[in-house]
Amino acid sequence: MKRKKLLTASEYVDGIKSGDRFILSRAITLIESNKVAHRELAQEILSKCQESNQTSFRIGITGSPGVGKSTFIEKIGSSLIERGHRLAILTIDPSSQITKGSILGDKTRMNVLSASENAFVRPSPSSGTLGGVARNTRETILLCEAAGYDMVFVETVGVGQSEIAVHYMTDLFLLLLLPGAGDELQGIKKGVVEMADLLIVNKSDGDREKLAQLTRRSYVNALRLFPLKDKDSRPDVYTCSAINGNGIPEVMDALEAYAKQTDVINKNRLEQDKYWLRQSIESGLISSFFEHPLLKEELAKEEQSILEGKTSPFLAAERLLRLFEKRSK
Amino acid sequence: MKRKKLLTASEYVDGIKSGDRFILSRAITLIESNKVAHRELAQEILSKCQESNQTSFRIGITGSPGVGKSTFIEKIGSSLIERGHRLAILTIDPSSQITKGSILGDKTRMNVLSASENAFVRPSPSSGTLGGVARNTRETILLCEAAGYDMVFVETVGVGQSEIAVHYMTDLFLLLLLPGAGDELQGIKKGVVEMADLLIVNKSDGDREKLAQLTRRSYVNALRLFPLKDKDSRPDVYTCSAINGNGIPEVMDALEAYAKQTDVINKNRLEQDKYWLRQSIESGLISSFFEHPLLKEELAKEEQSILEGKTSPFLAAERLLRLFEKRSK
Repeated sequence: MKRKKLLTASEYVDGIKSGDRFILSRAITLIESNKVAHRELAQEILSKCQESNQTSFRIGITGSPGVGKSTFIEKIGSSLIERGHRLAILTIDPSSQITKGSILGDKTRMNVLSASENAFVRPSPSSGTLGGVARNTRETILLCEAAGYDMVFVETVGVGQSEIAVHYMTDLFLLLLLPGAGDELQGIKKGVVEMADLLIVNKSDGDREKLAQLTRRSYVNALRLFPLKDKDSRPDVYTCSAINGNGIPEVMDALEAYAKQTDVINKNRLEQDKYWLRQSIESGLISSFFEHPLLKEELAKEEQSILEGKTSPFLAAERLLRLFEKRSK
Repeated sequence: MKRKKLLTASEYVDGIKSGDRFILSRAITLIESNKVAHRELAQEILSKCQESNQTSFRIGITGSPGVGKSTFIEKIGSSLIERGHRLAILTIDPSSQITKGSILGDKTRMNVLSASENAFVRPSPSSGTLGGVARNTRETILLCEAAGYDMVFVETVGVGQSEIAVHYMTDLFLLLLLPGAGDELQGIKKGVVEMADLLIVNKSDGDREKLAQLTRRSYVNALRLFPLKDKDSRPDVYTCSAINGNGIPEVMDALEAYAKQTDVINKNRLEQDKYWLRQSIESGLISSFFEHPLLKEELAKEEQSILEGKTSPFLAAERLLRLFEKRSK
C-alpha cells in the first residue's frame, strides 16, 4: 500500500460528515494504527466527531459458521436501505489475520451492500488483543455515526470472548440459529445464547420451514427455564429466511421498534460505558501484574508449590500481592 | 461465649484426626477468626492436617428457598450414612448474620444428621467478604477431610456470587428444582443453571410426580440447546422425593459413581486451585485500586466526564492506570 499524506483533523471531520467514504476509511485506519501520532490524530478526530451528537442504532450479530450471517445481513440490510436507512457493517474477528484476501472475501460476500451508496462495509483488522480490537471497533462506530449511518451492524464470527465485547458495544445483540435443535447446533459458542437479546432461526424456507418453527418453540421453552444473567426480560425468538424473505419484514419491524426505545438504549449505553471503564482498568491492572517479569517467575514457583500441596492458592496469592506492592518500577 | 484456652497445633490435629468433633469445631473457629494469632495457628493446623492426604468427595448444593434443600440433605445424608459414609455438612450464606438463632435453626432443620455420630453439621459464619467466606469454607473442608469425613456437602442459600464460590470448591454441583417449569421457578438465581453438574427435581411425590417428570424432560431438552460455559458434557437431570424416598437410591448411585471418578476429580481440583489463585490475585489487585482514596476521587471525576460525553471510558481508564502506577504508598 502506498503512503498517503495525513490530513488535518478538521479535514478528516469535514470529509466524514460530508459522507466521503474514502476519508472515513482513512480515519478508521488511523484508529487502528499502532503509531502514537496516528492515534493522537484519531482521538482529535473522534472528539470533534462526537460534538455533532449523531448517533445510530447499534446491532450486534453472531451465529455459527454456516448459519448464513452474511446473507442475512445482505438481505436485512438491503431491505432497511429501502426503508430509508443508511447502514454501516463492521466485523470483529480476532482469530483471523489481516489479508487482502479476507477483506475482499468479506466484501464480496455482501455484493448488494458493498455496491450501495447507503452502506459502508468494513471488516476490522484483527491484530492485537481483543481489548484493542474492541476499543477500535467502538471508536469506528462513533465515526460511522458522525458520517450519518443510522444503523450500525457489528458482526462477529468470533471466539466467545469477542461476543462479549460486541454485546457490550451494541444496543441489541442478535443470535442467528439454524433450524433443528440439538447436536447440529453445537457450533454455537458456549455462553452465547445467554447474551442474546433476540434469537432468529434463519433458513426457514422450503422443507426446513416446519423444523424452523419447532426449533423456535424449543428455544422459547428453554428460555423460560433459564433465568439469564444480565437480562430483565426473556429474549424473543423469530424465524426467517434470508433467501426467500420469509419473516424478514417482521424482523425489520422488531429492529425498528427496538431502535425507537431511546430511553432503554441510553440507559444501556451508560451501563456499557461503566463496563468498559471497569473492564479497561481491570485488564490494565491484571496485565501489569501478570506481565511483570519478576512476578511471572514467582507465580510459576507458587503454582508449583500448590501443585505439590505445600501451600494454598490463597496464601500464594497473598505473598504475590505483597511482592507486587513492593515491586520496583 | 466463654473464652477457651488455645491448644497447641499438634493437640488440635490429634483431636481432629481422632474424630473429636468438639476440637474440630474449635479449629474451624480459629479459621474463621479475624485475629492474626488465631489465623496463624489455623494455618499450622491446616498444614499438618494436609500431610495425611485424607480427602473426600465434595458436593455443592443449591436451589431456591422452598425447594427442600435441608430435607433433601437430611434424607440423602442418612441414606449415605447407612451405606457406610461419614458426612460433613457446611453451609455458605454471605447474606445472613451470625446469630445463635440461625445456627440453631440450621441444626434443628437436620434432626437426624445433627444427632448422628457419622455426621458433622456446621453453618458458616457469614461476616466478611464472599472471598473470605469462600476461603474459610475451603479450609474447613480440609479439616473435615482430616477428621475422616468422606463426603462433604456445601449448601448455599446464597446470592448468585456464593454459588460461583461453591461451584469452584466442590467436585460436583447439584441444583435442586421444583416440579413445574416456568414462572414459579424464577426463584433460581440467574446463571445458576449454567453451573450445575447435576439437576434434581425434588418433591416428585403424590400429585406432583407427573409434573416432576415433565419438568425433568423440559430441562433435558433445554440443556440440549444451551452449550454451557465450563462444561464438556451436559448435566444429567433426575427426579426424586426427599419425603417418600422416590428416586433417592438413583441419586445416591449417581453420587457414588461420580465419587469414583478420581481422575476427573483431581484434574478439576487443579483447575480450581488455578481459579482461586488467579481469582485471589485479581480481587486483591482490584481492591488495592478501587479502595485507594485518591483513585476513588479521580474515578468519580472521570465517570462524570464520561457521562457528559467529554471522554471515553478507554481514555479515562488509561489516565487512572497511570495514576495508580505513580501512586504514593
